[in-house]
Amino acid sequence: MSSVLIGTALPRQDGEAKVSGRARYAGDHLPAGVLHARLVTSPYAHAFIRRINPSVALALPGVVAVFTAANLGLRSSDGSVRSLEPLAGTEVCWCGHPVALVVAETEALAEDGAAAVEVDYEPLPAVLDPEAACRPGAPRACLQRDFRETLRQSHALFLPPGASLEEEGLSPNAAALPALRMGTIEEGLREAEVIVEEHYRTSPVHQSYLEPQTVLVVPDAHTRQLTIYSSTQGLLNARRAVALALGLSERQIHVEPVPVGGGFGGKEVLLEPLVAAAALQLRRPVRLVYTRQEELLAGNPAPQTAITVKLGARRDGTLTAIQVRLILDSGAYPYPLAGLSGFHFSNLYRCPHLAIQSYLVQTNKPGSAAYRAPTGPQAYFALESTVDELCRRLGLDPLAFRLRHALREGDARLPGGRWPRIGLVECLEAVGSHPLWSERERVRSELPAELSGWRVGIGLAAGGWPGATEPAAALCRLESDGSCTLIVGSVDMSGSDSSLALIAAEILGLPARAVTVVHEGSDTMPYSGLTAGSKTTYSLGSAVLAAAQDAREQILTIASELLEAAREDLELRDGRVTVRGVPDKYVTFQQVAAHSTNFGARYAPVFGRGRSANATSGPMFAVHLAKVAVDPETGEVRVLDYVAAQDVGRALNRGEVEGQIYGGVAQGIGWALQERLVYGEEGQLLTGTLMDYALPHSQDVPSITPLIVEVPCELGPFGARGAGEPPVVPVAAAIGNALRDALGLRLTELPMTPERIVRAWQEGGNRTPSAGS
Amino acid sequence: MSSVLIGTALPRQDGEAKVSGRARYAGDHLPAGVLHARLVTSPYAHAFIRRINPSVALALPGVVAVFTAANLGLRSSDGSVRSLEPLAGTEVCWCGHPVALVVAETEALAEDGAAAVEVDYEPLPAVLDPEAACRPGAPRACLQRDFRETLRQSHALFLPPGASLEEEGLSPNAAALPALRMGTIEEGLREAEVIVEEHYRTSPVHQSYLEPQTVLVVPDAHTRQLTIYSSTQGLLNARRAVALALGLSERQIHVEPVPVGGGFGGKEVLLEPLVAAAALQLRRPVRLVYTRQEELLAGNPAPQTAITVKLGARRDGTLTAIQVRLILDSGAYPYPLAGLSGFHFSNLYRCPHLAIQSYLVQTNKPGSAAYRAPTGPQAYFALESTVDELCRRLGLDPLAFRLRHALREGDARLPGGRWPRIGLVECLEAVGSHPLWSERERVRSELPAELSGWRVGIGLAAGGWPGATEPAAALCRLESDGSCTLIVGSVDMSGSDSSLALIAAEILGLPARAVTVVHEGSDTMPYSGLTAGSKTTYSLGSAVLAAAQDAREQILTIASELLEAAREDLELRDGRVTVRGVPDKYVTFQQVAAHSTNFGARYAPVFGRGRSANATSGPMFAVHLAKVAVDPETGEVRVLDYVAAQDVGRALNRGEVEGQIYGGVAQGIGWALQERLVYGEEGQLLTGTLMDYALPHSQDVPSITPLIVEVPCELGPFGARGAGEPPVVPVAAAIGNALRDALGLRLTELPMTPERIVRAWQEGGNRTPSAGS
Repeated sequence: MSSVLIGTALPRQDGEAKVSGRARYAGDHLPAGVLHARLVTSPYAHAFIRRINPSVALALPGVVAVFTAANLGLRSSDGSVRSLEPLAGTEVCWCGHPVALVVAETEALAEDGAAAVEVDYEPLPAVLDPEAACRPGAPRACLQRDFRETLRQSHALFLPPGASLEEEGLSPNAAALPALRMGTIEEGLREAEVIVEEHYRTSPVHQSYLEPQTVLVVPDAHTRQLTIYSSTQGLLNARRAVALALGLSERQIHVEPVPVGGGFGGKEVLLEPLVAAAALQLRRPVRLVYTRQEELLAGNPAPQTAITVKLGARRDGTLTAIQVRLILDSGAYPYPLAGLSGFHFSNLYRCPHLAIQSYLVQTNKPGSAAYRAPTGPQAYFALESTVDELCRRLGLDPLAFRLRHALREGDARLPGGRWPRIGLVECLEAVGSHPLWSERERVRSELPAELSGWRVGIGLAAGGWPGATEPAAALCRLESDGSCTLIVGSVDMSGSDSSLALIAAEILGLPARAVTVVHEGSDTMPYSGLTAGSKTTYSLGSAVLAAAQDAREQILTIASELLEAAREDLELRDGRVTVRGVPDKYVTFQQVAAHSTNFGARYAPVFGRGRSANATSGPMFAVHLAKVAVDPETGEVRVLDYVAAQDVGRALNRGEVEGQIYGGVAQGIGWALQERLVYGEEGQLLTGTLMDYALPHSQDVPSITPLIVEVPCELGPFGARGAGEPPVVPVAAAIGNALRDALGLRLTELPMTPERIVRAWQEGGNRTPSAGS
Repeated sequence: MSSVLIGTALPRQDGEAKVSGRARYAGDHLPAGVLHARLVTSPYAHAFIRRINPSVALALPGVVAVFTAANLGLRSSDGSVRSLEPLAGTEVCWCGHPVALVVAETEALAEDGAAAVEVDYEPLPAVLDPEAACRPGAPRACLQRDFRETLRQSHALFLPPGASLEEEGLSPNAAALPALRMGTIEEGLREAEVIVEEHYRTSPVHQSYLEPQTVLVVPDAHTRQLTIYSSTQGLLNARRAVALALGLSERQIHVEPVPVGGGFGGKEVLLEPLVAAAALQLRRPVRLVYTRQEELLAGNPAPQTAITVKLGARRDGTLTAIQVRLILDSGAYPYPLAGLSGFHFSNLYRCPHLAIQSYLVQTNKPGSAAYRAPTGPQAYFALESTVDELCRRLGLDPLAFRLRHALREGDARLPGGRWPRIGLVECLEAVGSHPLWSERERVRSELPAELSGWRVGIGLAAGGWPGATEPAAALCRLESDGSCTLIVGSVDMSGSDSSLALIAAEILGLPARAVTVVHEGSDTMPYSGLTAGSKTTYSLGSAVLAAAQDAREQILTIASELLEAAREDLELRDGRVTVRGVPDKYVTFQQVAAHSTNFGARYAPVFGRGRSANATSGPMFAVHLAKVAVDPETGEVRVLDYVAAQDVGRALNRGEVEGQIYGGVAQGIGWALQERLVYGEEGQLLTGTLMDYALPHSQDVPSITPLIVEVPCELGPFGARGAGEPPVVPVAAAIGNALRDALGLRLTELPMTPERIVRAWQEGGNRTPSAGS
């Protein structure tokens, strides 16, 4: 399809409102009579609750109610989903576990009230480290619920149907997920002439969206109808959770569309049922906005992991075996994406023998949730660090090794089937021809004067995201002024609206500005699932394409009759339908609209409807190059240059695609070097403010060069794949490999903090990974 | 199509909220910082404005602004549409003409402010009576604008393209509309052996909806976006008017759906541009709610008319000529439905020679607007009274005469074409077999004891409404709980939602309660025009039918695959798709929804979309019988019994159809006996309260027997025609004919008040109409 607009850079419609502070987020809505809520959270990581005494709190002026699990009125839950059981019953399982919700006339009064709620705890032993929690004899993270039983009963894991949770002599905190296998791992290891094995650990990381978790619930004064304003990534998901938790029908719940200030997977559904239950009982609007401290204490961060990767290869560089043991820290609740995590290790390289065993482990930490390419940064850090070591052991060029083994169309795929057309090779090639790689010897020697004495390295790493699909629908309405309204039910977190507008504008021959993207509430919008999984452009974009094509057909039908011309002789351009070659013979879209609306008009309204259900996802790949400088004496690291190649299938809105890459790399730098939630020995959070929890600042982020690769994806609109997830994936590995290049030693723990670098340096530098048998 | 639900009586979804007072109308929204507006209106029916001095008003505490035409900031207008020129410039043309708008912090302060605005008028001669205004030498109703020129330039009249406005030696206040003709009227009159001619007059009548005209406009604090809550019959119409008046693009204007407390044609667009202009300038919400007095003073009532009907017939009862002269009082602005008014006289009877000449006359009264079957009650009062006289002159049974001449399918129609299948004959037959007619001699003698001495009569009259069409669209969304949401952009004034729900439920095999009808704002709704013209069920219902059928097909496609069964073997019932004859083999709608939503699901979401553009309207007819008692000494009238036959094509929701008939007849009784806006000699309104303007009370309305006739209409959903307009049409004529029967004299002026009855009785009783040449 020839295109005029696709691939240009279209500014966001909501950009001005957001940068000028005018956008009204969920927390900016303050209806008359609104009450404010504050949580009472557990200071213990594990304890029984003996008694909760709300009477002092209730006696405070302005305190309206104190809710506990006993009087919140939620339906009983199986404990598999934290949002459905938002307050602890008789056992707290993590430090920060909400025990009560205090509702008061002002935020400050609610805070006073929360401080005045008396809770009598009986402390219990806690277990924080996921590896320690696996060991037989480890304290049980939760006593009142059997973790494995919960996993078996819940569908939260994306487990294949019928999969069993193996036990393998682990502590009851741990459950083994179904193994992922290709070939026979023993054979692959037998065939190997070189084996490299390394153990990695990562830290829990918070999604660190700008806008905190926010829910406002406005009950109807007389019925059990609720209107919800929530910082959620999915209106219908919030609706369903609230309906389920409160025993209401979905039609009683109206979720309003509000701008969302970032989510990255952390805002699927968390606090909506809690606040809804309070509002429904009090018959007044109730608002809960997390403080940044509550975010860090009681959010739902990305899980900590411990990963052992063992690679086997022949001396000629043929990869024969990939064996992985992945321990996922589930926190107190099942990690909903556990079932997907192991696949990452099978998604880069052709290898005849593969065995991936994942374990999900309950610990006394808050539950884990999605964070941009869930488990991707952790998995590819481990895999790509080990690949780098393997290449070093074999004396191979790491790019050549990767090119040789990179997955290509037609290769076998786990859990079955073949890989479709993908762009991993093209991304490797794009990076390979960039001077940062092709002239890396020269480039490595270029160091700013003020870093004199620092060591410099260049690292390469690949990563991917398998993509996701979800059915979607969209509408395209012709307006009487000849413009077009695109109606979608998605939550725009990353500028996806601008790509959707481009799709419709391209199809309709309209300037991009003549397409307005509109969202309304959950009652009427075309179906759209969570904004997650890099699927909005891919899945919803397909529906938008279909809706615009449908509208185009309707416009052509009307114009063909009005112009008395054959449809095939007509073209759409600049809001007109013109007879090809006869520029004076045209009807405007306004005229088409006038003939299809208004009293007595002859034609049905132009109202395109698109429905999509892409049968397969569009896998995405990214290959990154990092140039770093490191001072081994202080451990300080500077990322000096960065190149990020990424196959996006087709860059619909080049500006937004580049924005995704800049943002993903910046977050990846946080994963690599800075970010971690640290818990004390008894499980208390030690990084409860942004002074302690270190996010990258602007000076930590180098100039990033995006290399956009376009290997079209069959089902995506104009060939587009997703773009959001991949850019965060290879960053920690690329930086780790660059540090290895600079220092001659392998960092195996994320984040690679100065302290860890100094310790590793002092422990002997130039450490090489242990060789297997 | 066999049907389960169609024809049952389904209560309204909004009924409980409305009867319990919980429904939140436009005026119930009071956003923070809202300002209140009050009009300064002209005490003169015609005057120049010399000067407006707002300074005293502006000095009052709490008065925020005084707007006049000079500073309101509306685009200049051609004067053809009152709402686009809401404040008088330098000439007021009617008593009540708004001159300024005072905006203040409270309603009371706005009222004080309005009283303090000093306006210096130079009074001018006014003309109130439409017949007087036609005469050469009559005062000009408006000096600064040429009425005929305005008519020529505006499209407000539904004039056929190219029609000219003849002058015929009338005053410049009057314009002759294009004549409507069949045959040669001179020939028809020549052939006639009996000619009956009568002159009728009617009064201006207010639509008297319960909820007054209300507009609240909330401007965005930073952009030129406006959100409007308005008691309007059409969201997109209000949007377009405001965009036009303020020079905004339509996408800047968001019209929210709110329940509307009756409209009957009087709430198309009136005050929206005025309030929007004030809010846009002040950057604060502004609210204007009419008082009942303002409604009566400055609403847009049904027009006064003066009508001469001349009928010619042979002695054998063959109708040979219908000649009509219709004078429509336009008030100060063009009556938008003038072009349609003359057709009424051609819409009942076969007659070879027909000539209808209408005149639109400007007077110093507020503009005229639609009111339930616009100009129908007036026209059929004149026509059917004259037919009654003709039958009496010829000694014919009035039912037999009507049956003989009633229009049937295939008869020639003005302005061209043929009548489709219609149910006028069936309505006449239905009434003819009702005891109130078939046993009328006996029934006439039955009189309540307390009315002893009163005279009793039974009257028959027919009437119709040609119907209307407008393109429309609708959506039908399957929910995850297996229910269905019907999404429409219409304004439900009369319970139309319940009929639409029945259509969808019938098609989908769902209980009616499982269909929720949802309306959202003008930004996203499927196209729907004004709720007007008895076209919602007919036009939008067709779109709903198509949307439900589309959803049904989508459900069948999915179910067919899930059940591995052929589509033609499947049936939809009670929210399941079952293999016919195998009741255990089914999938539920919930399952279908789960397979077409959610991550990774295989099928596109079930999202039916319907678009309609019915090529022709579905004409409706009603035939009424009234039994009245009258005391000729006092003129008091009691309507004792009432039978209303009506062809609705198919009664989708029988309860709502009967409700329309009850309501229409009640309003018709107001037209017949009570309601009129009375103006003093200088044009001041004398009936400015409901003490003076007499609406029917419950004791004025008798038991009404609806006879529902169902002659299916080809294009309507399940054969349905509209139902709202016809029941008001024949009432005044039926009561007039009953009074003629009782008193032996013809009342020729509406309303037929006791005073007029007594005067007619005293002037000689038993008056017969003048015979023509």
